[in-house]
Amino acid sequence: MAVQNSVRAMTPLKILSTGAAVPVRCVTSAEMDKRFNKPDGYVQRRSGIEHRFHITDDVGQAQLAAEALNDALQRQQIAPESIDLLISASAIGIQVLPYTAAHILKVSNLPQNIASFDINNTCVSFMTALETAACLLNQGVYRRIAIVSADLPSRGLNWDDEESALIFGDGAACAIVEKGDGSSGILSFLLETYPEGLELCEVRCGGTRRNLRVGMDDSDFLFDMKGKQLFRLATTLIESFAERLLQQAGLTMPQVDCVLMHQASHLAIKHICKQLRIKPDQYVDIYRYRGNQVAASIPSVMHEAWTTGRVHEGKPLMLFGTAAGLTLGGMVLLP
Amino acid sequence: MAVQNSVRAMTPLKILSTGAAVPVRCVTSAEMDKRFNKPDGYVQRRSGIEHRFHITDDVGQAQLAAEALNDALQRQQIAPESIDLLISASAIGIQVLPYTAAHILKVSNLPQNIASFDINNTCVSFMTALETAACLLNQGVYRRIAIVSADLPSRGLNWDDEESALIFGDGAACAIVEKGDGSSGILSFLLETYPEGLELCEVRCGGTRRNLRVGMDDSDFLFDMKGKQLFRLATTLIESFAERLLQQAGLTMPQVDCVLMHQASHLAIKHICKQLRIKPDQYVDIYRYRGNQVAASIPSVMHEAWTTGRVHEGKPLMLFGTAAGLTLGGMVLLP
Repeated sequence: MAVQNSVRAMTPLKILSTGAAVPVRCVTSAEMDKRFNKPDGYVQRRSGIEHRFHITDDVGQAQLAAEALNDALQRQQIAPESIDLLISASAIGIQVLPYTAAHILKVSNLPQNIASFDINNTCVSFMTALETAACLLNQGVYRRIAIVSADLPSRGLNWDDEESALIFGDGAACAIVEKGDGSSGILSFLLETYPEGLELCEVRCGGTRRNLRVGMDDSDFLFDMKGKQLFRLATTLIESFAERLLQQAGLTMPQVDCVLMHQASHLAIKHICKQLRIKPDQYVDIYRYRGNQVAASIPSVMHEAWTTGRVHEGKPLMLFGTAAGLTLGGMVLLP
Repeated sequence: MAVQNSVRAMTPLKILSTGAAVPVRCVTSAEMDKRFNKPDGYVQRRSGIEHRFHITDDVGQAQLAAEALNDALQRQQIAPESIDLLISASAIGIQVLPYTAAHILKVSNLPQNIASFDINNTCVSFMTALETAACLLNQGVYRRIAIVSADLPSRGLNWDDEESALIFGDGAACAIVEKGDGSSGILSFLLETYPEGLELCEVRCGGTRRNLRVGMDDSDFLFDMKGKQLFRLATTLIESFAERLLQQAGLTMPQVDCVLMHQASHLAIKHICKQLRIKPDQYVDIYRYRGNQVAASIPSVMHEAWTTGRVHEGKPLMLFGTAAGLTLGGMVLLP
């Protein structure tokens, strides 16, 4: 079993830069009120969102990912040629075959022949990629890694289902990492799967289960989320999960400077903060202007923290998320 | 850039056990001759395959994966509770959301709440997962990892396209690994992407590119492979790639005891052997009785080597494959 009961040695990792991108089309909740024939203010009240971004048909997931990647490169004037691995950490890919990182690499400014692969455990993919990247860097396999998460949930929304249709937004975000000098790194990382919750959030098409050969219908292409049940299951798990995560880092919640949460929904954020006793000044919230961006949420909120003075050297950050699977992911970082 | 010009230090890794599974339905080439109205022997001559396995509609990818996993557990009497991470390393997943490892975990005998995620760079996913697993184990994040690759290409075959329809077979294979005592491990690992070949092998549906919202047609669900062009591009790349891979391990081809290749096609295997000067007694070939099993090919051929006395302690093995992307992957292992 993973080392959970003792404090783990820090895995060196330096976050050199972060970047983010959203599509140009901004969809306000007021606009959605009209679309759904609802009274003014209904969608904003129901979703907790003022606006989110939905991509237009002429732009692809790879382009949006490349935009976030370029943003991260430019912000710290990082030479594209210095990157030797691209990891795509998205929940939903571009197509069945080949994998998403190859598509992103193709439209990026990165050297075309570097290593690339996808990591996926839905909304906590970015954290898993960050941990994996740290291990690859410390083993000397690569020197500088770009991780990019891009998700376009708008392409799979079920407009007949308010619960999911109102809360999702498209987006992409990136982090560029290297081993660093050992003064920063990962203090703890925890990943747990609860497959009894697998059917509570799914899109059934796009693989071997539902397709042209075996059979499928339109609903297989759409988000199918049982929000209340998902929330109920997560609620029973997160408290002891966060405890194990912090224990591994040798910390308690009040010692965490900043919490970067998956922006699942305004109600989920509120509930998690209450359950884990996270204070308002401890967490970063971009949900109101982005919605739930699936795997792009965590790196987007990380980018927000990194670019708005919320991150301080030597002060621990906690990353935290519940994901379709049901999967829980958490990480404590020393920036 | 990855360390390519100097001999890399060995990353400790012990392969504790391997396992494999194929569907019950065996499809002979003689049967396919009849299906396609061809003269006797046509399909076998054209494909180089005597029989391959195609799954029936009542069995899923997760079940086949779990079967391979159980095979690996049972062969070395490994306790399922000793596994603390499950990596799915398949090219095509079960469905768009959530990821495949959660599905496999659900139907497996493994403890239900362990960590899980997918790694994907098509047909070399297993190698990438093996390298990643080694780094995670050496960093102390996990103690014992199960990697399983399962692919069901039969569910996306275009029966109007002989070139691809004849050569694919379904299958699953697994390796269970831990850090070991340092006497075995990974001597070198190399991954390169050539996205100029991205459209040469693809299945376009199942993601944000082609779907209910943006539009799609039946062909988007089927393997679209331009075999000759793919082969031509790979041919220009593999010689210098293999040279860099071996250089990193401080070895030459004659010093490699056994080559475990992606079983792309009989012509590809023949050509690669000729180009890389791999002798007939140096490689393991299961293509004739399996076909191209996509990401399951490399671990299946590894299982064959491990269970037929082809692997000897202290004698280096080379893993090698070209994958949709176009992506080249290679690894030198000291078992």
